[in-house]
Amino acid sequence: MSLQDSHLQPSQVEAFYLGNFAGPSFVGQNHLAPYVAAAAGISGVPCTRFEAACASSGSAFFHAVTAVAAGVYDIVVAAGVEKMTSQPTPRVTEILASAGDLGGEIRAGATFPALFAMIARRHMYEYGTTREHLAAVAVKNHAHGFKNPAAHLRKLITLEQALAGKMIADPLTIYDCSLVSDGAAAVVIVPLERASEFTRKPARVLGIAQTSDHLALDQKESITTFGAVRAAGEKAYKMAGLSAADVQFAELHDCFTIAEIVATEDLGFCPKGEGGPYAAQGATSLGGARPVNTSGGLKSKGHPVGATGAAQICDIVIQIRGEAGERQVARNEIGLAQNLGGSGATAVVTILGKV
Amino acid sequence: MSLQDSHLQPSQVEAFYLGNFAGPSFVGQNHLAPYVAAAAGISGVPCTRFEAACASSGSAFFHAVTAVAAGVYDIVVAAGVEKMTSQPTPRVTEILASAGDLGGEIRAGATFPALFAMIARRHMYEYGTTREHLAAVAVKNHAHGFKNPAAHLRKLITLEQALAGKMIADPLTIYDCSLVSDGAAAVVIVPLERASEFTRKPARVLGIAQTSDHLALDQKESITTFGAVRAAGEKAYKMAGLSAADVQFAELHDCFTIAEIVATEDLGFCPKGEGGPYAAQGATSLGGARPVNTSGGLKSKGHPVGATGAAQICDIVIQIRGEAGERQVARNEIGLAQNLGGSGATAVVTILGKV
Repeated sequence: MSLQDSHLQPSQVEAFYLGNFAGPSFVGQNHLAPYVAAAAGISGVPCTRFEAACASSGSAFFHAVTAVAAGVYDIVVAAGVEKMTSQPTPRVTEILASAGDLGGEIRAGATFPALFAMIARRHMYEYGTTREHLAAVAVKNHAHGFKNPAAHLRKLITLEQALAGKMIADPLTIYDCSLVSDGAAAVVIVPLERASEFTRKPARVLGIAQTSDHLALDQKESITTFGAVRAAGEKAYKMAGLSAADVQFAELHDCFTIAEIVATEDLGFCPKGEGGPYAAQGATSLGGARPVNTSGGLKSKGHPVGATGAAQICDIVIQIRGEAGERQVARNEIGLAQNLGGSGATAVVTILGKV
Repeated sequence: MSLQDSHLQPSQVEAFYLGNFAGPSFVGQNHLAPYVAAAAGISGVPCTRFEAACASSGSAFFHAVTAVAAGVYDIVVAAGVEKMTSQPTPRVTEILASAGDLGGEIRAGATFPALFAMIARRHMYEYGTTREHLAAVAVKNHAHGFKNPAAHLRKLITLEQALAGKMIADPLTIYDCSLVSDGAAAVVIVPLERASEFTRKPARVLGIAQTSDHLALDQKESITTFGAVRAAGEKAYKMAGLSAADVQFAELHDCFTIAEIVATEDLGFCPKGEGGPYAAQGATSLGGARPVNTSGGLKSKGHPVGATGAAQICDIVIQIRGEAGERQVARNEIGLAQNLGGSGATAVVTILGKV
């Protein structure tokens, strides 16, 4: 579809970057990059799978953009894919846990809901964040996703429903957790001066960075902030010559509601510790000062892990093109995407703008 | 160890490229790049896992070299790792099979020994290749590996032993198959003009290419030649301004003996169909016209899948530095490494030379 949208023949593609987290575990197929590329008619060129947990296709996109910017290639496809629903839920949880620190936290019984529950609990302790703040993020993202025809779960929920949801890992209820989804997304990357050959509505990468940190929570300096996200944000802002104040809308990695709250703080959308009230007061809602996850986010649009980073880029581009329909933001010149791997061991931040 | 060898501090490393095929399946740990990097003291920079089946670290090296050559980074580590022996053999075979076409050939009962047995049988039919030709490759690589202190299986074998080996997939005996190994390798990549800061004995990348093809054998034009290897070889030769005749020694991907024979043909070391006699006559032995796999190859040095591509580069560099001891080649100015993913869906060819 991205090839059609850009009037590209598969034979024109010079390299294929595929983000996929755990295809071998979910469906048994490894060596996925040439496999998927050949199905799309792309062959003979470098076809490579990038794995960085839930930031796999964010990382594929980062490396693809870097290669095109450096003049290595002119026409690159960066895609992401994950098929998760073929496994039963306990096995999905186990596969997802392999993105955490196996020897330490996972073998001790932690799963990702448990890890993010600890982050939420500590954020509550340090900053007074409440369950209502978390639930406000869920209500907002479900309301956004309800307007997105491509969302996985189009379902409006109330604050009361979110608060009364089944408890998964205290204080996170089922409504604080993102979805187990199947999905794919792809982006075509070309040099700016050639963009008009392929589309009448290009978007421009203004800044991009990938960074890393330790896997285990107990090895991080703090668990209420992600150092990798802050560092990636700073690098991307610097490359773009922009600051947080310039970002008009964003797709943030809401694998859990607390993750979106922490991201709004780490990226400088609001002061540290104020991400909960910031969301609850409507700043990140459609019509608010800086809409976040107008796609519905991982909560409602869905979280096919390896596809999420590329899908975020697609959603930012849809907004920049003014093609978001009912969920269109008013100020759509500059958008930011933030993709998180595991509990913050990988972070990719991209700032996109109108050409 | 590669950091020590190059007098590098971990904080100087600007990006970390890790090749790993199936860590999640072998040991349960995914998201391996920041995990391994942090253990080496590298953090905060892009740390990314590259997966391209048995060519995973060949691909990591290709992308790292490309990034340094394009001026994106100055100091990059490309590494590879695989820990295979923690699983029982039938499970290892199953995990390796995930690099083939799952829906077609693997679910039909094929494993990698079976796929390469078909390649060998067809090569015999088309070109008169014999079991003695295959066995000659095994005898040679075991003789080479016997001289390599770092080899996994240091064991001399005779032609008679190789021919009388336990049949795995007719015509391939146990001696035609590479090893199930644990291992890791790493390479430091810097711009040529900075090499003297880090080592007195640098090697230079003269040419490098990664290419792709269909996964399934029945979708390839021929199964007695790997189109991806030929294409990668042609590109690498062109980049280096060299031809096959200029290559003095090589590390070729002998996952099975037939694979080394086909590679010597596909890379132009000998005419098509003559790879068997070429090996049997000693051309590829130490002291021969063009020694191949002086490390012992995947047969004797071992085949920790995700580490193999990076290990091949290390072995070429050891020869170029003149540090190969008993297995040192006489003409060590130009060496070639060929890394194969699956049954040829990915190929990486690198030509290295003295600075």
